[in-house]
Amino acid sequence: MASYLITGASRGIGLELTKQLLELPVSQVGKVFAVTRSGPSAPLRGLIDRNPDRATHIIASVDDTESVQRAARDVKAKLGGQGLDVLVNNAGQQAISPGGTKTAPPEQLAHLFDVNVIGPQRVTAAFLPLLEAGNQKKVINVTSSMGSIAWVDRYKCAPSPAYKISKAALHMLNAQYALDHAEAGFTFLCVSPGWLKTDLGGEYADFDVGVGVTELKRIILESTKAQNGKFLNILVPGEEKSRGQYDGGEIPW
Amino acid sequence: MASYLITGASRGIGLELTKQLLELPVSQVGKVFAVTRSGPSAPLRGLIDRNPDRATHIIASVDDTESVQRAARDVKAKLGGQGLDVLVNNAGQQAISPGGTKTAPPEQLAHLFDVNVIGPQRVTAAFLPLLEAGNQKKVINVTSSMGSIAWVDRYKCAPSPAYKISKAALHMLNAQYALDHAEAGFTFLCVSPGWLKTDLGGEYADFDVGVGVTELKRIILESTKAQNGKFLNILVPGEEKSRGQYDGGEIPW
Repeated sequence: MASYLITGASRGIGLELTKQLLELPVSQVGKVFAVTRSGPSAPLRGLIDRNPDRATHIIASVDDTESVQRAARDVKAKLGGQGLDVLVNNAGQQAISPGGTKTAPPEQLAHLFDVNVIGPQRVTAAFLPLLEAGNQKKVINVTSSMGSIAWVDRYKCAPSPAYKISKAALHMLNAQYALDHAEAGFTFLCVSPGWLKTDLGGEYADFDVGVGVTELKRIILESTKAQNGKFLNILVPGEEKSRGQYDGGEIPW
Repeated sequence: MASYLITGASRGIGLELTKQLLELPVSQVGKVFAVTRSGPSAPLRGLIDRNPDRATHIIASVDDTESVQRAARDVKAKLGGQGLDVLVNNAGQQAISPGGTKTAPPEQLAHLFDVNVIGPQRVTAAFLPLLEAGNQKKVINVTSSMGSIAWVDRYKCAPSPAYKISKAALHMLNAQYALDHAEAGFTFLCVSPGWLKTDLGGEYADFDVGVGVTELKRIILESTKAQNGKFLNILVPGEEKSRGQYDGGEIPW
């Protein structure tokens, strides 16, 4: 009967994760709060309509502190005294600077940092009291192996310096939360769901969204406190040696 | 006769580095451009007055794109057709959130990212054409081992989540520049000058500013293309096993 909150649930990874969680038995997934910036997309609306007792739509924009805090009050009321078990910081944006790092404009760097780093900070800080009252105390930061400084060579041809910078910064945010709340029993994880065919990932990505989200879901369900603070990769048999090294292991910082 | 440009030269590490470089023979250090946000501090003014042919004061604020671009035009004119050899992105700010990561306000995260990450981006992008025309093609990003995600445990008690996040992000900026400009012969480095007794480091820091800057200067002078993209620590004999692990080695990301 665990409860989940997922940001960026209108499409892509967030929508697919909402769908896959709702396919699990109620004994495993009790409630799913699907957070989107504005009214739900048609597919999210369909999911909610088919699961009226378990799925709830919440409006909040991760770049707007007040809207996030309002959402936390809203979810608290809907949980009726129960805690929140799992938070999935999935909302994120990508941006391209085809001319190389030197052409990444200040506004782009600031915007991606606001959405991809301060966004998870706003959401995590606002929902922390509810998570402290929950049983699982899991916070999953959806990230990308493109945010690995150690792997920077692999993604030389990906013209998204601001995105990579924002994800490296997110990893340090995660690391500090993991340290701060380890003794309270929390599990903070960075998970790279692979390069997926979403609006963000594009059509040339390695896998359909379902492949990566099946793995993301498995990692969320199986993760324990022993993994607190880690940066985990998905496992895709046959792709362990690919550029994405989808071997289910830890990704270096 | 190499030329140097140092941001944040009014005090602390930047002032000391300006001083130590000007103590070297003209054959080694020809010109030093000391960049500050506003009029020079009294000690910087003294240094410039004593070295009128070698030291030049430049006004620019790293959080103001237009002022940085104006400074680049100014320096270009002063170099009279010569390139710039070494850029030291030293200007930076620190901020405290004593209540832990969850209490780091969005405004603080955004501000430190603007100064500590977008600042070096503004400066590096603006001076890159001059550096391409220089002989040494070195860019030194002054950072901190507190920005190492792998070492996050060591600095658990340092209540500066936004600072650590900004430095991790800076490391990814550096890594991407190193990759982009390796073939052109550049050396992009992250250097942690140690925890120093400056306004930023505070009075309880490990070393006087001169100790760390002597090492920073040595690393700048001795560095070669083979080190492009690395994150280097200072070497302080007897302190190799300290928390700062001042062993002159590479710091993990």
